[in-house]
Amino acid sequence: MRIAIDAMGGDHAPDATVEGALLAAKEWSDVDIVLVGDEERIRALMPAGAKPANVSVRHASDVIAADDEPVKAVRRKKDASMVVAGRLIREGEADAMISAGNTGALMTTALLVVGRIDGIERPALAPMLPTMDGSGVLALDLGANMDATPEQLLQYAIMGSIYRNKVHGLPKPRVGLLNVGTEAMKGNELTKAAYPLLEQAPIHFVGNVESRDVLHGNCDVLVCDGFVGNIMLKAMEGTVGAIFSALKTEFTRSFMSKLAAAVLKPGLSAFKKKMDYGEHGAAPLLGIDGLVLKSHGSSDANAIKNAVRQARIALANRLVEAISTETSRKREG
Amino acid sequence: MRIAIDAMGGDHAPDATVEGALLAAKEWSDVDIVLVGDEERIRALMPAGAKPANVSVRHASDVIAADDEPVKAVRRKKDASMVVAGRLIREGEADAMISAGNTGALMTTALLVVGRIDGIERPALAPMLPTMDGSGVLALDLGANMDATPEQLLQYAIMGSIYRNKVHGLPKPRVGLLNVGTEAMKGNELTKAAYPLLEQAPIHFVGNVESRDVLHGNCDVLVCDGFVGNIMLKAMEGTVGAIFSALKTEFTRSFMSKLAAAVLKPGLSAFKKKMDYGEHGAAPLLGIDGLVLKSHGSSDANAIKNAVRQARIALANRLVEAISTETSRKREG
Repeated sequence: MRIAIDAMGGDHAPDATVEGALLAAKEWSDVDIVLVGDEERIRALMPAGAKPANVSVRHASDVIAADDEPVKAVRRKKDASMVVAGRLIREGEADAMISAGNTGALMTTALLVVGRIDGIERPALAPMLPTMDGSGVLALDLGANMDATPEQLLQYAIMGSIYRNKVHGLPKPRVGLLNVGTEAMKGNELTKAAYPLLEQAPIHFVGNVESRDVLHGNCDVLVCDGFVGNIMLKAMEGTVGAIFSALKTEFTRSFMSKLAAAVLKPGLSAFKKKMDYGEHGAAPLLGIDGLVLKSHGSSDANAIKNAVRQARIALANRLVEAISTETSRKREG
Repeated sequence: MRIAIDAMGGDHAPDATVEGALLAAKEWSDVDIVLVGDEERIRALMPAGAKPANVSVRHASDVIAADDEPVKAVRRKKDASMVVAGRLIREGEADAMISAGNTGALMTTALLVVGRIDGIERPALAPMLPTMDGSGVLALDLGANMDATPEQLLQYAIMGSIYRNKVHGLPKPRVGLLNVGTEAMKGNELTKAAYPLLEQAPIHFVGNVESRDVLHGNCDVLVCDGFVGNIMLKAMEGTVGAIFSALKTEFTRSFMSKLAAAVLKPGLSAFKKKMDYGEHGAAPLLGIDGLVLKSHGSSDANAIKNAVRQARIALANRLVEAISTETSRKREG
C-alpha cells in the first residue's frame, strides 16, 4: 500500500512529517511512503543511509500556507505539496494521503483533485472526539459543509458506521443524531426529517443524543451538520480551556494552594490530555474516492506515524471500497 | 406595578415561590404581587399576619407538571396556575408574570395566552450565560423556536440589545452573531444571510463570535437560532459537569489528594457556581406583549425574589413598550 504524505503541511513541517514517515516506514514494511514536497529540504532531513527503501520523495515546488484561502490556493498552486499528493491518488500512484496542513485546502483538494465517491453528495470531515471513558466518538460532519440535507445526514451516518467498523473493529457501531432532546420528535426541521431516514438505514441507530451527553460516550458515531458540529466542538474546547485557566488561578493563589496543586497536577494533566481532541488521531474525509486523512496542525512525528497506522488499517480493510459498495447498493436498491 | 407569580411552578413550589414573594413584597413597596395557585396551600404558607398588604392570592385549581406535553397542557388545563397568570397579563390585571415551571409550557402560555408583540414573528427565550469575567452574555434564542429565518435573527438582535440596555443599563450593548469563524463570510446559509441585516440594524453589531470565545465575554448579546443555541449551551454544561466529576475522582484518589482538595475546594466551588447558568437570574421571553420571566426550575426563595427584582427594573424602564416601538418603527420605516 502506497501512502502519500504532504511533507510541507503542519506547524512542524517538514521536520515532523519526515521524522514521522521514517518511524512509520521502519515499523511497517508493507507500507510504501511517498514524501511530497521540497525535495532538497526533505532529503536534508534524511542523511545518507537514513532513508529506508520503502520511503521515496516526490518533489513539489509550492506550499499551501495555513492562512491561504482554500479554494483559491488549491486552484492556483497546482504544484503545492498537498495538491500533488491528491493528484497521486487521483492517478493511481497512491492509495492514501495524509496532511497536517490547511484544513479547508485539504477538503478542497479532496473534493476537486481526488474526487467524490459516486453517489455521495458531500464528503464529511470525521474527527474522533474525546469521551470520559476514553473510547471516543466519531463525529461527522465537523465542518466540511456548513449546511446539510436529511439525505446527507443519512450518508454521514452510513459512512461513519462503516469507518468505525472497518478501522476500529466495532461490530455494531451505535449511531446517534445530535439533537436538543432524546425524544424522537425533538429538533429542528433537519433533524426531524433525518430521524426516520436513520431509523430505516442499515445501521445501529440509537436515536437522538444531546450535546451534554456526548462526553459520556453513549454512541460511537455522532451525526450532525457541519455548522452545528463545529459550534458544539468549539463550545467544548472553549469550556475546557476556560476551566483549566481558572484552575491555574486557583492553584497559584497561595503557598498552600501551590502545594495542593503539585499533588493534583499529574492526574489533571493526564485528564486534560484525554480531553484534547488533537490527541485522538487523524480525521478522515469520508466520501472521497481515496483515503484522505487530516492530521492535526500541531502534529509531531508520533502523530504522523499514528496517521500512517490509521491509513494502513483503513486500506487493509478496504474502507473506501466498502463505502462505495454500500452507497451504490443504496442507489440501485 | 403588578407582578403575577406562578406559585405552583418549579421544583420547590409552592414553598419557595411564596417565601420569595414575601421577601420581594417586603423589599419593594411599589410592587403588588399576585400569587397564582392553590389558595389553600398558599395561605397555609402565610400564617396570619405574615401576608403583607402588597401580596394577594388568585386561586387556580390546576397545575402544569414538569413532564406535561406543553401545547396539550396549556390548551387543556385552562385553570392551571401558569395559564391563569398569563391570562392576568392578557386581561390587564398584571404587568408581568414569573414562573419556575415547565419551560415549554411557559413558552406556549406566553405565545397563546399572553400573545406576541405586533410585528414580532417569533418570541425568543433569552437567558444570561456565564462568562469568565462574571459579566455574562444574554443569548437568544435558546430554544423557544428551533429554526429561524435571517429576519428572525435580526429581531432577536434588536430585542436582546434593548433588554441589555433597559434592564442592565448598558449604553451600547455589543451584539455578536454565533458562528464558526469570525470572518464576515463564514457560516451556514442562515448566518450568511443574517450578517448584512445585523450590520444595517440600529444596534452595535460586533460581528461573528465563535462558541469557544463566548465564555470570554466578548459580546453582551449573542444571537443564534434555538437549535444551535441549545446545542452550544448543553455542550458547555456537559463539559463543566464532566470536568468537575473528573476533578472529584482526582480529589479522592489518595490521602494526599484529599488534603490537597480541601485547600482548593472553596475557590473551585465559587467558580463552579459562577459557571452555573441557573445562577444568572430569570430568562425573559422577548417579543411577548407583556413581561414573561422564566425562573430556573430549581429556584429557591432568593431566586424568586431576584426574578421580581428583574421584573421591577424591566417594568420601570418600559422594556416591552420599547421593543414594541422599535419593531413598529421598523415596519413603518
